[in-house]
Amino acid sequence: MENKDCIFCKIIKGEIPCYKIYEDESCLAFLDIAKDYYGHILVIPKKHYENIFDVPIKELNIIMKVVQKISKHLVKNCGFDGVSILNCNGQSAEQSVIHLHFHIIPRKNGDKLRLCPTRDAQNYNLDEICNKIKILD
Amino acid sequence: MENKDCIFCKIIKGEIPCYKIYEDESCLAFLDIAKDYYGHILVIPKKHYENIFDVPIKELNIIMKVVQKISKHLVKNCGFDGVSILNCNGQSAEQSVIHLHFHIIPRKNGDKLRLCPTRDAQNYNLDEICNKIKILD
Repeated sequence: MENKDCIFCKIIKGEIPCYKIYEDESCLAFLDIAKDYYGHILVIPKKHYENIFDVPIKELNIIMKVVQKISKHLVKNCGFDGVSILNCNGQSAEQSVIHLHFHIIPRKNGDKLRLCPTRDAQNYNLDEICNKIKILD
Repeated sequence: MENKDCIFCKIIKGEIPCYKIYEDESCLAFLDIAKDYYGHILVIPKKHYENIFDVPIKELNIIMKVVQKISKHLVKNCGFDGVSILNCNGQSAEQSVIHLHFHIIPRKNGDKLRLCPTRDAQNYNLDEICNKIKILD
């Protein structure tokens, strides 16, 4: 349940230090060292899953409980007003470390960050897309 | 469990049409009509919760099961290579509709989108931040 070449597995084992925010028997949360956003946290399972595609739902539930716990803590106890939560799955989705992780970025009113991606409307046919990707009963 | 002024509650009730991707007794998934990203999907609970801060964990688990189901479907059956998952909580976090929702954006290798926000390192003291926001045992 560990991947010897995975940097997050090394952090879990203590081979690489981290700025620990929270830990329990299943999950670890620590600061992203990129320093790109104030309080940018990564929440990971201790078992090595690659992403949303291979994590068992029970394990995902455990992770989301921690994501929620930390999100509430940031707003209730740390003076933040909201949180952005991001999860990248696959190299196509800019997943850099292939060990499931959820980003939590604390937000403040007026922080002027733009973490929710937007761009101008494209020439998409929503009927066509819907027919292509909908899940049939 | 509904909010009369909420546009997502109106979609759930069928008062406003949607490009439905998936539905079960607890959740609805439909295309974002912004046309900003190809196949941009929103997954919402049928009960009106504002965001990660007020949703009961059991309900969150039900939503995440649908998020995972759709993510797998997009890669397994629809020709995508990955997914970006985003959840904005609070107006500070650019949450526009105050009804809990998860964005799923299908990704393809080489699509050149940049949905994982990054910016240059800031002058942050990680020790200080860690001490401020860590959850004590």
